[in-house]
Amino acid sequence: MAAVRKIINDPVYGFITIDEPLILQIISHPYYQRLRNIHQMAFAHLVYPGAVHSRLHHSLGAYHLMCNALSELKSKGIEISHDEELGAKIAILLHDAGHGPFSHTLEQELIPGVHHEQISFLIMQVLNAEFNGQLDTALAIFTNNHPKRFLHQLVSGQLDVDRMDYLNRDSFFTGVAEGVIGYDRIIKMLTVKDGELMVEEKGIYSIEKFLVSRRLMYWQVYLHKTVLGAEMMLVKIIRRAKELIRKGEGLHAASKVLDNMLKNPQDYQNMSDALQIFCRLDDHDVLATIKNWSWHPDKILRLLCRSLIDRHLYKVKLQAEPINLALTNQKVQEVAALLELNEEETAEYFVFTGEASNTTYNPADERINILFKDGTIKDISQVDNALIQHNLSSTVKKYYICYWRV
Amino acid sequence: MAAVRKIINDPVYGFITIDEPLILQIISHPYYQRLRNIHQMAFAHLVYPGAVHSRLHHSLGAYHLMCNALSELKSKGIEISHDEELGAKIAILLHDAGHGPFSHTLEQELIPGVHHEQISFLIMQVLNAEFNGQLDTALAIFTNNHPKRFLHQLVSGQLDVDRMDYLNRDSFFTGVAEGVIGYDRIIKMLTVKDGELMVEEKGIYSIEKFLVSRRLMYWQVYLHKTVLGAEMMLVKIIRRAKELIRKGEGLHAASKVLDNMLKNPQDYQNMSDALQIFCRLDDHDVLATIKNWSWHPDKILRLLCRSLIDRHLYKVKLQAEPINLALTNQKVQEVAALLELNEEETAEYFVFTGEASNTTYNPADERINILFKDGTIKDISQVDNALIQHNLSSTVKKYYICYWRV
Amino acid sequence: MAAVRKIINDPVYGFITIDEPLILQIISHPYYQRLRNIHQMAFAHLVYPGAVHSRLHHSLGAYHLMCNALSELKSKGIEISHDEELGAKIAILLHDAGHGPFSHTLEQELIPGVHHEQISFLIMQVLNAEFNGQLDTALAIFTNNHPKRFLHQLVSGQLDVDRMDYLNRDSFFTGVAEGVIGYDRIIKMLTVKDGELMVEEKGIYSIEKFLVSRRLMYWQVYLHKTVLGAEMMLVKIIRRAKELIRKGEGLHAASKVLDNMLKNPQDYQNMSDALQIFCRLDDHDVLATIKNWSWHPDKILRLLCRSLIDRHLYKVKLQAEPINLALTNQKVQEVAALLELNEEETAEYFVFTGEASNTTYNPADERINILFKDGTIKDISQVDNALIQHNLSSTVKKYYICYWRV
Amino acid sequence: MAAVRKIINDPVYGFITIDEPLILQIISHPYYQRLRNIHQMAFAHLVYPGAVHSRLHHSLGAYHLMCNALSELKSKGIEISHDEELGAKIAILLHDAGHGPFSHTLEQELIPGVHHEQISFLIMQVLNAEFNGQLDTALAIFTNNHPKRFLHQLVSGQLDVDRMDYLNRDSFFTGVAEGVIGYDRIIKMLTVKDGELMVEEKGIYSIEKFLVSRRLMYWQVYLHKTVLGAEMMLVKIIRRAKELIRKGEGLHAASKVLDNMLKNPQDYQNMSDALQIFCRLDDHDVLATIKNWSWHPDKILRLLCRSLIDRHLYKVKLQAEPINLALTNQKVQEVAALLELNEEETAEYFVFTGEASNTTYNPADERINILFKDGTIKDISQVDNALIQHNLSSTVKKYYICYWRV
Repeated sequence: MAAVRKIINDPVYGFITIDEPLILQIISHPYYQRLRNIHQMAFAHLVYPGAVHSRLHHSLGAYHLMCNALSELKSKGIEISHDEELGAKIAILLHDAGHGPFSHTLEQELIPGVHHEQISFLIMQVLNAEFNGQLDTALAIFTNNHPKRFLHQLVSGQLDVDRMDYLNRDSFFTGVAEGVIGYDRIIKMLTVKDGELMVEEKGIYSIEKFLVSRRLMYWQVYLHKTVLGAEMMLVKIIRRAKELIRKGEGLHAASKVLDNMLKNPQDYQNMSDALQIFCRLDDHDVLATIKNWSWHPDKILRLLCRSLIDRHLYKVKLQAEPINLALTNQKVQEVAALLELNEEETAEYFVFTGEASNTTYNPADERINILFKDGTIKDISQVDNALIQHNLSSTVKKYYICYWRV
Repeated sequence: MAAVRKIINDPVYGFITIDEPLILQIISHPYYQRLRNIHQMAFAHLVYPGAVHSRLHHSLGAYHLMCNALSELKSKGIEISHDEELGAKIAILLHDAGHGPFSHTLEQELIPGVHHEQISFLIMQVLNAEFNGQLDTALAIFTNNHPKRFLHQLVSGQLDVDRMDYLNRDSFFTGVAEGVIGYDRIIKMLTVKDGELMVEEKGIYSIEKFLVSRRLMYWQVYLHKTVLGAEMMLVKIIRRAKELIRKGEGLHAASKVLDNMLKNPQDYQNMSDALQIFCRLDDHDVLATIKNWSWHPDKILRLLCRSLIDRHLYKVKLQAEPINLALTNQKVQEVAALLELNEEETAEYFVFTGEASNTTYNPADERINILFKDGTIKDISQVDNALIQHNLSSTVKKYYICYWRV
Repeated sequence: MAAVRKIINDPVYGFITIDEPLILQIISHPYYQRLRNIHQMAFAHLVYPGAVHSRLHHSLGAYHLMCNALSELKSKGIEISHDEELGAKIAILLHDAGHGPFSHTLEQELIPGVHHEQISFLIMQVLNAEFNGQLDTALAIFTNNHPKRFLHQLVSGQLDVDRMDYLNRDSFFTGVAEGVIGYDRIIKMLTVKDGELMVEEKGIYSIEKFLVSRRLMYWQVYLHKTVLGAEMMLVKIIRRAKELIRKGEGLHAASKVLDNMLKNPQDYQNMSDALQIFCRLDDHDVLATIKNWSWHPDKILRLLCRSLIDRHLYKVKLQAEPINLALTNQKVQEVAALLELNEEETAEYFVFTGEASNTTYNPADERINILFKDGTIKDISQVDNALIQHNLSSTVKKYYICYWRV
Repeated sequence: MAAVRKIINDPVYGFITIDEPLILQIISHPYYQRLRNIHQMAFAHLVYPGAVHSRLHHSLGAYHLMCNALSELKSKGIEISHDEELGAKIAILLHDAGHGPFSHTLEQELIPGVHHEQISFLIMQVLNAEFNGQLDTALAIFTNNHPKRFLHQLVSGQLDVDRMDYLNRDSFFTGVAEGVIGYDRIIKMLTVKDGELMVEEKGIYSIEKFLVSRRLMYWQVYLHKTVLGAEMMLVKIIRRAKELIRKGEGLHAASKVLDNMLKNPQDYQNMSDALQIFCRLDDHDVLATIKNWSWHPDKILRLLCRSLIDRHLYKVKLQAEPINLALTNQKVQEVAALLELNEEETAEYFVFTGEASNTTYNPADERINILFKDGTIKDISQVDNALIQHNLSSTVKKYYICYWRV
């Protein structure tokens, strides 16, 4: 195949260069192009109007960081063959290909029991067949079956290029400048020892900042009360729609794809059969449907859809202690009276509680290893004068209540 | 009403502050929130994946620049009352409220004969009624009926904050760093003399850069061949759909709003009646519809919709001379044979020509006046050593051909 | 006096605006202009070539943040008179005016027993006399004798605009992007309760990032081994020069000012007399002198000066444990042999140890108070899920050895 | 030699990587380190306080762009050997090594008749001898004696990396954001045909912006009236000092190096002998000397030196027409009376005129060639719809008068 070379402008990194024909072919594939129509940050733009970047954009960014990381490691003498390089780049490019619209929110509503990573895996297999086995190495790396474990760690691990890109990109597009991480310095500090990804000693403070940025982004942005309120409203809309379908009431999604998914969930039990349909689903199906339903005769559905469109969201309270039951009951009564609904429906759709939790750094899960000049290796939580000790490695749980504004 | 103060993160300007209750109410209105779902740059993201910012984001940005410009002018002793300040801010906030989805492309397809500025005007009138006349000054400024002409010029003129924001924001989100303009310096150089907006002498080079950036953005970004190809494909889809409707063939848009608009165009003759429906229309209606139609039995419609979704766009050639007729005819024949269509349909939907033109600076249209220290005023094309002489003030026309890739 | 308005370009903040005649007069004063010739970061540019910004630039930046902070507090209804505003701006503008060249390094070498803040105070008094008492309020704020304590806290406290600017500016010019702090968000979160500066609850994560940035900048930049090595070399040069003067050997500084300061230290016991001379001293005196001395007959002085100029610096080791005495002794012997010096001189000038310590956040010293929505106040180390607990509030000490490269 | 790899933080480009032992050795050489103490923009920091970056920093930046440009060209299949690559990098690193302090101002005052490029050439020759001929290729490229002419054009030509870096870096550090150029896009558009450096068609608008930025930087920054006033004051100081030396009056520069240069200019007729001394001269010598002279008995010298230090600069007027002689005469009389000097001395040192000129793009000098897709080549001033026609390619001359503020 003739030499190809494509340069993509990226406000975050300047330019992203693609110079492998296979990469270009994958990017041009409809399964990849679909990601263009899926917001990376779902409803975060309701609070941060700039946060409308797509999953396609994020995965291109992660691909760019992968290129940089591989080139850096090679310049340090770590052996990586062209086939492995290509494999790692494809693995990261497709790592999120299995996401549906509003993924973290709807994943378990639309196709219960199937995780988006499984779908990414299925998509890679389909593409591998289409491209005559050229994705074999990518699949091995993605599933951690490739002998050079650090390649998988770059795709999925405590310090993978996925996290580096999304933290950086989400900070950039939200305008939360404090979330920006020193991705270029972290990448320059990466190294490999005994087949494992490590960080050079000089990179300790950059890693600390990375973990603190993640913590900040989690509590300040990803779990923003308004965003949480919108996501919960979407969940309730889909649950109400499924309830109406169960009851046999007339209800149609705006698009054939979403309509089928809601009405024939059994089709998706064996995801691989339904993949082709799933790979036509994006944000537009969901949002056009909600707009149509904002005129639906069912009061609950109509109310929820109209509210989400007009950005009249639930009031959300988030706190360190569990929500007081008395408060919940009081709100149920108030809202039930206001909306003229019974208490059961009110508690199901308009007043409810939940919890969220986050661990900044969990060394039990997967470690960030620091390689010292003298050859010793320590987990970052074990170095002298570490910021990451008790506090950042323990899980923090918060409780919330969502209720209709009275 | 109690004091309000809302801070919105913006990657372009850092923070946008809103501290007027009325401004907050307008922003919360469904007619404004609709702009959230309309891409500012239509299909530009097919080339520049970051260019997915919304018209809501742009108008907030223009509002921010208006705040800065007014504050700058006041600090120079120019009298602006609180009512005028509020009016100018509301006028810019709503100046684009009348845009529909893919506005520059579809404006004349969906509601022929109605310009988006008329709709913005209607929306302002509706809101003025809702808010008991509080938008009177905004309307006067918007329609250039307010005695302080410079306020209108800030909303709409050669150097208005609308252009400043969109050039800056579009450059930012596309990643075309060269389009970025020195908006803050231009604003610091603004002044008013005899009721007209002027630029201080020291700002000449900044204005030149602004005009050169606009030229660059026009030819390099807005008129990018791929973007043009996608826009033309969308036009052809809508035309084909209208043709099928005319023929009485079964065809439904995914959303009720768009369906009604395509099937009952006469409703929109008297725009004010139809305003409420129009103000529910956004990108999702169009894009969900195109997805549905990608399975439609009509071959032409199906082909166009499927191609737009999969990003298999027309091949576009852009040149200084008119397109050679022989080339067009040859392409028609090739494509007709390939697609097994007759030549008429091919020429209508798959091979066609057009032209685009741009004037960087048209002093005949509206001038950029430079105020010298000695009190004299010159048009920027008349100052010594001006960059803007013949070339930037003459219209440049380019010709293009779009055709199906064989 | 006529209206003045001066705009200064600043790569960090865009533009700095000055619109008070008195501020302009102070900035134009030779005592302030002197700061132009004093590097903010001394020898940091030996590692970070961009870090050549001046103390004048830093104090202008701090002034800019003070303007923003005061304007923010006023918009929240906190009463600040024009006189107080002017006072706070002047206080921050002059807070560092007492710094000499290579201040943190040479402060105790050139004028032992006098702290730079005392000199800043003296300078303010002199200017107050020159400007007929117009600096009374600035002096009261600077010395914490003004009743509104928060004004002093903005000049000097855990969250003062001095620190905010230098962390931000030093990060910017070194290119250590990770040190950049969200100064604008912190300023938007500032408030005042009971006369004390506080941070609104929503600002917690920004403050955490600020403290982590400070920690990173301290260990990674300010205490960089190469920078430490250069600073220690400068100290040794000045000590050697004073030693030679004591011995009566011929030695002249390049400049009269520095020459006088080295030879007649008693003049500076009563600082106010010597102020006029001190206020002519800057980096050029020190660096031109070192260049001249690089040809001096005294071997030690010549060697040290030549090495500093040519950037052949000490080798520095930094560690958590005290330096092993055996290592020191071994190095002394090696270097003494190499340089053909006796062991005493070697230990004095070419092989020596020291220690450095830093506390990221010392609540005992001065607290960062978080104001919650319900009106309660907590120190940031006491809030739920705080990052700042044991670790960041305990002092970290490191030990170092500097020795001549063998 | 063992593998080396050094990463330098740069606020402009992020990181600059050095991985050739020879490059590191050159950078460590005292002749290169000297550039650390020479301001790239001389007195521009009197207006733009951030503009204190050094010639060392600029040449590192130009080196970085050279690395990028070479890597880009190689990826396009242009053959460049490792030796040529190293040669081009060294040539750019040392292209400015011959600059003395305040070079554009003092070049002809300190060593009349010798151009800084000649000194750069001499320095390269000395280093070539030290490094055993390893700079042969660098010298061939620098002097345009290497057969691949495009390598020389990258070092010195209309589109060389020298200009790209200084425009970009000067814009960055002054904070004149509008001067920033799309250096990365220009580099990606570079190509080579018939051994000549060209720009791909798609790069036309980037080149236009580059030329317009240069024009803006020239008139707005480099020729800023205050900067011009300071530079002229420095020239007058040196001329007065030479005059006093000629008259045999007691006068000493603060540093031996500068003292020798002023008193024994004949030593520098044969530059190569004097090189070692010249290569010890930097800004500190000049500035420490001026400080000393601010107490000198000669009234003119003292007045000029004191004024430059205290930033009491000449008043400068810049205009398109020659300065009216009557104005000059009137100013001479006023100033002579005020300073109690005779009119001759006044006209020599305190009231005088001059002129400055600039051509944005001179195709006669050296062309910027655009390579079209069809293989044709056009000068940028010849393409359709070119911005660069008459105006940017004609020389603009301005006239100025400098006079002591009365």
